[in-house]
Amino acid sequence: MGYIRTFGEIEGNPEGTPYQTRDELRIAGLHAHNQAGISGTPREGADAIVLNGGYPDDRDEGDVIIYTGQGGQDHRKQQIADQTYEKGNGGLVLSQLEGHPVRVIRGHEEDSPHAPAEGYRYDGLYRVVRHWWKRRDDGFRVLQFRMVKIASMRDIQDFDDSELDDHVASPSPAAGPSSRVESVVNLLARRASVVRTIKNWYKSRCQICGETVELPNGPASQVAHIQGLGMPHNGPDHESNALCLCPNDHLRFDNGALYLTDDLKVVDAMVGTIVGPLRVHGQHAIGIEYVRNHRSYWLQDS
Amino acid sequence: MGYIRTFGEIEGNPEGTPYQTRDELRIAGLHAHNQAGISGTPREGADAIVLNGGYPDDRDEGDVIIYTGQGGQDHRKQQIADQTYEKGNGGLVLSQLEGHPVRVIRGHEEDSPHAPAEGYRYDGLYRVVRHWWKRRDDGFRVLQFRMVKIASMRDIQDFDDSELDDHVASPSPAAGPSSRVESVVNLLARRASVVRTIKNWYKSRCQICGETVELPNGPASQVAHIQGLGMPHNGPDHESNALCLCPNDHLRFDNGALYLTDDLKVVDAMVGTIVGPLRVHGQHAIGIEYVRNHRSYWLQDS
Repeated sequence: MGYIRTFGEIEGNPEGTPYQTRDELRIAGLHAHNQAGISGTPREGADAIVLNGGYPDDRDEGDVIIYTGQGGQDHRKQQIADQTYEKGNGGLVLSQLEGHPVRVIRGHEEDSPHAPAEGYRYDGLYRVVRHWWKRRDDGFRVLQFRMVKIASMRDIQDFDDSELDDHVASPSPAAGPSSRVESVVNLLARRASVVRTIKNWYKSRCQICGETVELPNGPASQVAHIQGLGMPHNGPDHESNALCLCPNDHLRFDNGALYLTDDLKVVDAMVGTIVGPLRVHGQHAIGIEYVRNHRSYWLQDS
Repeated sequence: MGYIRTFGEIEGNPEGTPYQTRDELRIAGLHAHNQAGISGTPREGADAIVLNGGYPDDRDEGDVIIYTGQGGQDHRKQQIADQTYEKGNGGLVLSQLEGHPVRVIRGHEEDSPHAPAEGYRYDGLYRVVRHWWKRRDDGFRVLQFRMVKIASMRDIQDFDDSELDDHVASPSPAAGPSSRVESVVNLLARRASVVRTIKNWYKSRCQICGETVELPNGPASQVAHIQGLGMPHNGPDHESNALCLCPNDHLRFDNGALYLTDDLKVVDAMVGTIVGPLRVHGQHAIGIEYVRNHRSYWLQDS
C-alpha cells in the first residue's frame, strides 16, 4: 500500500546501502513487501527480490544468482505444495521477457559469503536471463530464475544517452549522478507504462498477423517502435509510436520486410503486396507521421 | 589474406591503442582490409569498422555513432550508385541480428572531436542496434547503422563468467586480464561458428514450424540452446545442443510452451499434443540427453 513500483536504482539508495529491517526497505521504495521474497506482479513485472536464505535451492555466486520463486510453503517454511506463476513468480517471468532490471537485496540470514553480517543490503541491479521448474527432493515443484548482475544499464536497455536527452532534460554535469539516476528511472517507468498499455489493449495479439504467442505464464508479445528511438530519428516513446507485435513480425518490421501504408495496411516489402490491414484497437491513435518516417527507411520511392 | 575474423577485443590491443597505418591494423588482426571501412561479410558478420571521414552522412557523438555503409562510390569517393547489402554492409546487418560486438577504429581524417590527431586509434566495442536506408541529397541511397558503445561484454552477451568457466579453463587472477580477454574471444568465436553451422544446415528455416523469416538482406533465424547454458544446467555450446528456430518458436521453446520427445517430436505444452516432427538436417546429431534435460524444466511428470 502506497508502494510505487519503480524499475532500476532508487535515488538516494545506491548499491551497497544497508538497511536494518524489511520495513525500511519498503519505506525507501526498494521492495513492496515485508515478508514475500519477490516484489512484483504478473501484470507489472518484478522490480526487486530479497535473498535471505528462504530456499536451500538458491545459489549465490555473487554476479550470478539462481533464485527460487515464492509460494507453496506453510508458516513454518515447509514446502507443502507446488509453486505457481502467480504473484511474484509471474512478475519475475515478465521481467525476464521485458528485460526489466531487478534490484537484488541480500539479508543476513542467507548462508553465503555474499550476505551482509546483519540486516539487509541493496546489492545492485540484475537481469533475469532464464527460468525453469525444478522438482525438489520432497517432490514439490518450484520455479527457479537465473539472474546475472548488470554492469551497465546502457547495455541491457533499449536506450542510451541520446534517448535520455530526448526523454528528459539532460542532467547537467553539475546536477551530478543522482539526477541521471532520476532520468533513467523516469524513462524506465515511462517505457514500462507504454508497454503495459499497448499489451493491455491487444492482449498480446500481434497487430500484423493476429497470432498470440501463448506461454505457460500467459500470452507474450513485443512492443515495437514505429519511428526509431534515439538519434537520428528521435521517435517518441509513446503509444502513438508503438505497435504490439509477435517476435517474428517485430523482426520483419524493424528490418524492412514489412511496412505500413498511410491507411494502415500492412505491405510485405519482399513481394511488394498488401498482406492485410493492421489490427488497431479503438483507443490506439497511431501517428501517421511515424508510419511515414518508418516507411522512408525502406521504401525506394519515398 | 591470412586475416582471422575474431569478434571482440584482440589480445594485446586494448582500447586506446594507436596505429600509424591501416596496414598495422590489419596485421594486428583488428580489421581485415586496407581500404574498405567495414571488416566483414554477409555470411560471417562484421567484426570492425573504421571511422575516417568517408561519409558526411556519419555522425559521431562518441558513445553513439551513426555509421554509413560502404559502396557506390567511384575512386574519387563520389557517390555514383546506391549501396547494397553486399560485403561489409550485410556484415553489419548480421552483426546487429546476432549481437556481435564490433570494434570501432577512428582515423585522423574524421572531422570529429573524437578523432585522433594522427593515424588511427582502436576505441572499443560497439553493438549495432538498428539500420535503415537513407536517401542522400544526391539521390543515391545509402545504408546507415546506429551503433552504441558497449560498457560491459557481460551485459550484451548471452553468457557470463559461469559460462566462461564451463567453456575454457577459468583464467586465474594471476593470469591477469589478457587471459580473460582470450577466454571471451575464444567463446565468441566458438559461438559464432556454432551459429554459422546451424544456420547453414537449415538455411534459417525453423526446425519447428518450417517457416523462414525473410528479410531484405536474407533469411533470418535464431539459434536456441536445448539444455540451458551456464549454471545450474551447464549445457554445452555445441551444435548437438542447438536448434535453428524462428523468434516465435524460440520464445516458446525457451519458456516451456514447446518441448521435444525422445524421438524428436514437437509437443505443444499448452495443449499437451504433438504438433509434428522436428525438422532435422542429416548432419545434425542432436543430443537426446539435452532434450531430456530441457523437458525436465517444463514437464510435470519428469
